[in-house]
Amino acid sequence: MKKIRLLTPGPVMVPEDVMLEMARPIEHHRTAWYKDLVRQCHELLQYLFQTKSQVITIAGSGTAAAEAAIVGCCPPGHKALVLLNGKFAERWGKVCDAFGIEHTKLAIEWGYGAKAADVVKAMDADRKLDTVICVHSETSTTALTDIEGIGRVTRDRGAIFIVDGITAVGAIPAKMDDWGVDAYITGSQKALMLPPGLGFVAVSDRAWERIESGKTPTLYNDLKAYRKSLKEWDVPYTPAVSLVRGLLVVLKAIKERGLEAIWAETALLAKATRTAAAALGLKVYAHDPVDSVTGLWVPQGVNESTLRKTMRASYGFQIAGGQGELTGKVIRFSHMGYMDAFDMLGAVSALEMCLAAQSYRFEPGAGVAAAQKVFAAALK
Amino acid sequence: MKKIRLLTPGPVMVPEDVMLEMARPIEHHRTAWYKDLVRQCHELLQYLFQTKSQVITIAGSGTAAAEAAIVGCCPPGHKALVLLNGKFAERWGKVCDAFGIEHTKLAIEWGYGAKAADVVKAMDADRKLDTVICVHSETSTTALTDIEGIGRVTRDRGAIFIVDGITAVGAIPAKMDDWGVDAYITGSQKALMLPPGLGFVAVSDRAWERIESGKTPTLYNDLKAYRKSLKEWDVPYTPAVSLVRGLLVVLKAIKERGLEAIWAETALLAKATRTAAAALGLKVYAHDPVDSVTGLWVPQGVNESTLRKTMRASYGFQIAGGQGELTGKVIRFSHMGYMDAFDMLGAVSALEMCLAAQSYRFEPGAGVAAAQKVFAAALK
Repeated sequence: MKKIRLLTPGPVMVPEDVMLEMARPIEHHRTAWYKDLVRQCHELLQYLFQTKSQVITIAGSGTAAAEAAIVGCCPPGHKALVLLNGKFAERWGKVCDAFGIEHTKLAIEWGYGAKAADVVKAMDADRKLDTVICVHSETSTTALTDIEGIGRVTRDRGAIFIVDGITAVGAIPAKMDDWGVDAYITGSQKALMLPPGLGFVAVSDRAWERIESGKTPTLYNDLKAYRKSLKEWDVPYTPAVSLVRGLLVVLKAIKERGLEAIWAETALLAKATRTAAAALGLKVYAHDPVDSVTGLWVPQGVNESTLRKTMRASYGFQIAGGQGELTGKVIRFSHMGYMDAFDMLGAVSALEMCLAAQSYRFEPGAGVAAAQKVFAAALK
Repeated sequence: MKKIRLLTPGPVMVPEDVMLEMARPIEHHRTAWYKDLVRQCHELLQYLFQTKSQVITIAGSGTAAAEAAIVGCCPPGHKALVLLNGKFAERWGKVCDAFGIEHTKLAIEWGYGAKAADVVKAMDADRKLDTVICVHSETSTTALTDIEGIGRVTRDRGAIFIVDGITAVGAIPAKMDDWGVDAYITGSQKALMLPPGLGFVAVSDRAWERIESGKTPTLYNDLKAYRKSLKEWDVPYTPAVSLVRGLLVVLKAIKERGLEAIWAETALLAKATRTAAAALGLKVYAHDPVDSVTGLWVPQGVNESTLRKTMRASYGFQIAGGQGELTGKVIRFSHMGYMDAFDMLGAVSALEMCLAAQSYRFEPGAGVAAAQKVFAAALK
């Protein structure tokens, strides 16, 4: 029996009890039972996003949810600033292109987070900009953006702030109301440790005002319809019932554990991984590394594709490669959801074995020893 | 232990082995394993739709898939005729409204299918109409439209023919290529007997030409991106991996059983239900009844809401009520997917008990006896 461990930054491993909950007989969604499920999930989603605002659940990927946020918040007459520091940020620029939303793309070097100063400069140079779109945790580059800092300057300027929190919300600190985020997006297959198929958008009152002020040129991803239904704990279109059933289980577990504790665990996994990498002579890719996913440069002489294939085929660890211009150059490890110190330790161990197989020179065991030291100091 | 039977026209009951397949550990979608899953599903989806064309799978409800078909096939410069004979047809009109697609809505009395003659008349009166949108099985009114007949006249006129086959494909005869359908839509929670969360569009070469000819004003539901990825058995956005895993199991089962056999079974369940209704003095609502879902008038003196609640609370049968103007006036029974003669016989029996509880006058047992007679003549 081969044990498979998914350390990709989405999908991540799904807890066994959640999988079994989702395997229970299907129920109809136009029932008091489903309304109660929606009501319970909603209360817990507000906790997850740290908000008092409405949180919309869409049957679709995180991309569907992000599209809904962007197209809703940018009716004609508004102009968006898209902060481009990776593949996912680029996708939100493409949403603007597709819907003909007026916008400016601000290129930021990959591996860096967007900075409040850049936003201030761009907004001061173009007074028409009244919407800012950025990515909290750029999964493709493993870079963190300071959402609190950008939230302060966007709020000062009265702009609407849309944040892709897909590999952030539930994994690292993400405080919608405190930070002044107006539309915060996530997906089910990241920190929520569910299968893919649900997208979420938490929407502030200011964003709702903007959304309700204009015509939204789409039906399925029009948040207005979801808002109207949610008032009666209902949904406009058939929801992904089995996934929502699993959602309640994970949200309860997250609430019980507490977000602060989870954020600390994610940070610990990231710290142990980076420490292990340093002990192995491997370099972290991102200049502003995020704790939910670690990207490491593949060292000279090591074939990235072979490394990842061996990790999976020989040791059962599935990790991610690079995207776009980083293809073949970096490997990425998720620290989200249903994984612990010993999964991460195993991944470091498997990585060592794969590096050794490619004659990379390092002290065998140095990575796991370094990681264990970090864990031993933190875990009791 | 109370046994629950879902006889709603979506979601329908999911086979136990499919639920367990979907409960297996999650796998990543950027893998050779997933490509192979996509390839196998695609071949079987072509069988399901009876087409040689590409079939696109979207993470979302059937509404997402229908929106993708409509917005893709109606770039600026084209004009659609929307045949309105129920709640779902109305929704496709709303997609046109939302995206600003030029169109004419043709109202058809509820309970009737759209007729080829109406289409001919409308198209002859407005030569700009080059797209026809209609619903094969109008779930809300339980009415059947003659897709073959309308396909003939739309093809004669060179128009693109978009068909909502959500409660048709896989349940009743639906022959995309033979009938000249250009975009055929379905969802996972109907004849495919999966949980909700997947939408499908089969797209003809003629439709692809139209889609590729213009800019599609949306990202998530832009079929072009799905087509491009599908050429490499890939997907543009994170797919609903667990549902796709279940999809392969149901598609294999459908292929093994054979579509003709399944269509005959659906028809038999419908016939038995209508025969039982007649024996109980109940009238079928639709003038052009479809075999995938039967709608019955609630007789005078019987409270529809109480009837449905008792069906569920006392006997475990969940059926559907009416939608829109039919709320409180009709009840609907699904004949799709994982259900058989004895589920239907049980539903008729529970219906009798609920009618008796409301002092409706009929001969007790007449319904089940009539249904059994139909089944006995057909089943060996």
